[in-house]
Amino acid sequence: MYAPLRAPSLPTPKAIRVNTRGAVILAEESPETRDSRGIYLPNYIEPVSHIALDIGGSLAKVVYFTRSPESPSVIATQDSSSTAGNLSTFSLNADSPSSFPPSISPIPLSSSYPRNGTLTPRVLELNYNGNGHSNGHNSSVSLDSLDTDLLRSTILKRTTEVRHIPGGSINFERFETSNISALVAFISELITRSAAANGVSIDEMRRGVKIIATGGGAHRFGKLFEGELEVEVQREDEMECLIEGMKFMVTIPEEVYYFSDELIQEVSHRDASRDLQSEIVMDGPSSGNATPSTGAAGPGLERPSPNPPRYAVTFESDEPSAHLPCLLVNIGSGVSIIKVDADGSFERVSGTSLGGGTLWGLLSLLTPARTFDEMLALSEQGDNASVDMLVGDIYGMDYSKLGLKSTTIASSFGKVFKNRGEGKEEGEGETFRSEDISRSLLYAVSNNIGQIAYMNAEKYGLDRIYFGGCFIRGHAATIATLSYAIRFWSKGTKRALFFRHEGFLGAIGAWIKNIDVEETQVSSVPS
Amino acid sequence: MYAPLRAPSLPTPKAIRVNTRGAVILAEESPETRDSRGIYLPNYIEPVSHIALDIGGSLAKVVYFTRSPESPSVIATQDSSSTAGNLSTFSLNADSPSSFPPSISPIPLSSSYPRNGTLTPRVLELNYNGNGHSNGHNSSVSLDSLDTDLLRSTILKRTTEVRHIPGGSINFERFETSNISALVAFISELITRSAAANGVSIDEMRRGVKIIATGGGAHRFGKLFEGELEVEVQREDEMECLIEGMKFMVTIPEEVYYFSDELIQEVSHRDASRDLQSEIVMDGPSSGNATPSTGAAGPGLERPSPNPPRYAVTFESDEPSAHLPCLLVNIGSGVSIIKVDADGSFERVSGTSLGGGTLWGLLSLLTPARTFDEMLALSEQGDNASVDMLVGDIYGMDYSKLGLKSTTIASSFGKVFKNRGEGKEEGEGETFRSEDISRSLLYAVSNNIGQIAYMNAEKYGLDRIYFGGCFIRGHAATIATLSYAIRFWSKGTKRALFFRHEGFLGAIGAWIKNIDVEETQVSSVPS
Repeated sequence: MYAPLRAPSLPTPKAIRVNTRGAVILAEESPETRDSRGIYLPNYIEPVSHIALDIGGSLAKVVYFTRSPESPSVIATQDSSSTAGNLSTFSLNADSPSSFPPSISPIPLSSSYPRNGTLTPRVLELNYNGNGHSNGHNSSVSLDSLDTDLLRSTILKRTTEVRHIPGGSINFERFETSNISALVAFISELITRSAAANGVSIDEMRRGVKIIATGGGAHRFGKLFEGELEVEVQREDEMECLIEGMKFMVTIPEEVYYFSDELIQEVSHRDASRDLQSEIVMDGPSSGNATPSTGAAGPGLERPSPNPPRYAVTFESDEPSAHLPCLLVNIGSGVSIIKVDADGSFERVSGTSLGGGTLWGLLSLLTPARTFDEMLALSEQGDNASVDMLVGDIYGMDYSKLGLKSTTIASSFGKVFKNRGEGKEEGEGETFRSEDISRSLLYAVSNNIGQIAYMNAEKYGLDRIYFGGCFIRGHAATIATLSYAIRFWSKGTKRALFFRHEGFLGAIGAWIKNIDVEETQVSSVPS
Repeated sequence: MYAPLRAPSLPTPKAIRVNTRGAVILAEESPETRDSRGIYLPNYIEPVSHIALDIGGSLAKVVYFTRSPESPSVIATQDSSSTAGNLSTFSLNADSPSSFPPSISPIPLSSSYPRNGTLTPRVLELNYNGNGHSNGHNSSVSLDSLDTDLLRSTILKRTTEVRHIPGGSINFERFETSNISALVAFISELITRSAAANGVSIDEMRRGVKIIATGGGAHRFGKLFEGELEVEVQREDEMECLIEGMKFMVTIPEEVYYFSDELIQEVSHRDASRDLQSEIVMDGPSSGNATPSTGAAGPGLERPSPNPPRYAVTFESDEPSAHLPCLLVNIGSGVSIIKVDADGSFERVSGTSLGGGTLWGLLSLLTPARTFDEMLALSEQGDNASVDMLVGDIYGMDYSKLGLKSTTIASSFGKVFKNRGEGKEEGEGETFRSEDISRSLLYAVSNNIGQIAYMNAEKYGLDRIYFGGCFIRGHAATIATLSYAIRFWSKGTKRALFFRHEGFLGAIGAWIKNIDVEETQVSSVPS
């Protein structure tokens, strides 16, 4: 569609050097970290001293790696069902950590290993391995501190490897882009803490650390970071990072998941007797969602429950190679739609400005909600049928000739004008519930993205459609709506897939891209 | 896309019997009637006693025919430029009738012919022609009244035809569906007036009149009309009527128009130096519109001016047969997208719930505007860049690698959340101008419809995309945005076309469909 667009020049294909064998996703109590649980890599032994940032229009995502012989006992996703029927569960919604399988009691990281951990500058590692030149008085100190760390780990955590600490965790953090100073403070504190843990000066730590920045903010805030943190900042292309991140994340067990048709129905329709395939709707998926009986009213969506696993998501078990070709739909403030070929080459083929920023912006004007999660919580209590004009509202019945059900959404917010408009003074006329407005707008934006994504997937003959970006937030209604849109428009031939770390594809990609760089150059030279 | 959908069973192909030779669009002062100017048919001689209604979710459209030897001197669109360069102008916006070419002074219809005119029941016509059986004492009376009419017309308007009044006008009216009683009153008054003019009893007039109803409301309000008006109501399929209406309207001279690339630029960008073709935007057309320099701020869009005609729209001069195949995008409260084949067969292939009802509903919640036109007027004073997140807001520059300009809209309403959200109390944080909100939402909805329309046109290999429906309202910014969307996405291979009677396609279709019915059956039998 973007003829004048050239596919960005591709990095020469290369194997990602990070050993993900045995990778597991760490459990954490905090709901805020639903999508930012650390990923533990028990077999990765290289030091990593760079911090990856993906600074979007609304959110800044941070990814960094901390060496730690962390115990696999903190794993969230290793439950019996997963090993059995490739079926596992996790919190679909930020406010319900309770949905973890009871068999697993998430163990918070030990205090001896603060959640954020510390960085291990390669320069120190080189000293430690004895194949680098000295860094002066600090090196011995760093050795001591490392020994101390090692000793404690050996005793406390049964680490077998002694000369090289095995494993470590990829850490994920999120900040509001509008509050960039909090991000700067976080990184500054991480550097200070790492310097102390490694027994080096902050200056030396800064020299050993590098920030890899991608996303729009990489351009806007690059100088800021260099100035305030005195750390080298290297920029990476946003689209390249998204794709690299996706290609890496599909190698993490139980990272990629989808909703089964049954789960889509349970969440979207709550009417098990309904035949998804035979249903025709005017505007894609919204349809059944509009009926008051769809759980729109009431205490909100039921939570996934492991036993029976009818509300469980399904994890994708295919080989990483099976994930390409595909369409990647990244939903942040705006939406980017990227075609990824079997060889990993890609092109941004479309997009829409109706994305997360539209939902969040309009709801911050229309409701008292002041955070994304407050808005999503409102939507779970809402019934969009009170603001949306349904086919039944217009026809008084189904438009059966076109197979349009009376519950189909004919016009999002179509009921509002007649109650607020012509002849009414400002403030006059019916008022509408924030819950209903939130649900209607969530449906409208999700349906629209699903429809445009489907049309692009169809255009390029792609059957796998991956949805990433912070818009999704593991929210059941959002995922079900997107899934149903793809399910409906493609008549079941295409599948919507999601990531547990949905919002971090760009950041993890920036982190991964730089692994090889570090492997090939002993010390990073400011470019 | 709608596999389970069958193309509605087609009426057997038939030539439309209405003689449109010499048809002209009547001029009227009232801005409200910009899109509902009567169409004068000087050569149509058949009587028409039915009233066509298209009752949508928000608006009810009325079409009926009144016999009248109206003088062509009241014509709005017969100006020199049109006969010359097929270039003519008319008010692009309800609030500027001033944009008529000065050479044409619109003449209001003479008081001897009230704007609404009267109906001529076929049953009376039959008596008059002597080939029908008598209707009793009323027939002679009706003859008298007809003679009187004829005499006056002959003297005042140089009518040559005597035994048969030549010509008449198709009249267009609009009502809020929520105020259906006003529509009932209007029809009741029309029937009463017509009975008096024809000198028949109201009961007889009612027997001679029929209501042809389409649109969703035809089902909902059918019984109401039958009950309150005591007139037969016949229902017609909505999609069939839209297509029939489109096929008829393309036969009316200077009904179908489009924006030249120059006009699109003038209205959308106001930057003549800009190269439309080389520009790439993230979300379709919005792009340049976002820059404060696009006339978003300031006194609003300039009006079309006939001399020089740089702001003039271009009228489609192709033969009616050249209009098919095409895509018809009808934008009412919701949006229907219909594929029309060369043989006139059609299928509703897609749609979106993000339509006029969404814009009107949200703006009635977000702004003091209480009518469509107030909302459009607000949007002309707005600058969407204050609420939309532009590429430049994120990147601080163009994203030139993807060819995204800094003025591209990355996220509609993307600037709102950061100023209203996290950490802010309700009522706290920045407030936004109604003008800016209106413009942003108008762009968002128009761009989205244009993008989805384009993708469907591309899918079915159609180069002509007709936009109808009351959403458009002849509003320059709306038309330019839709036109630019098609222009941009198709890289100039497809064209957006519009109708002056954009909102009446369904109603005129219902009227036309029934012409043949009346021709083939002497008196209409309640079905």
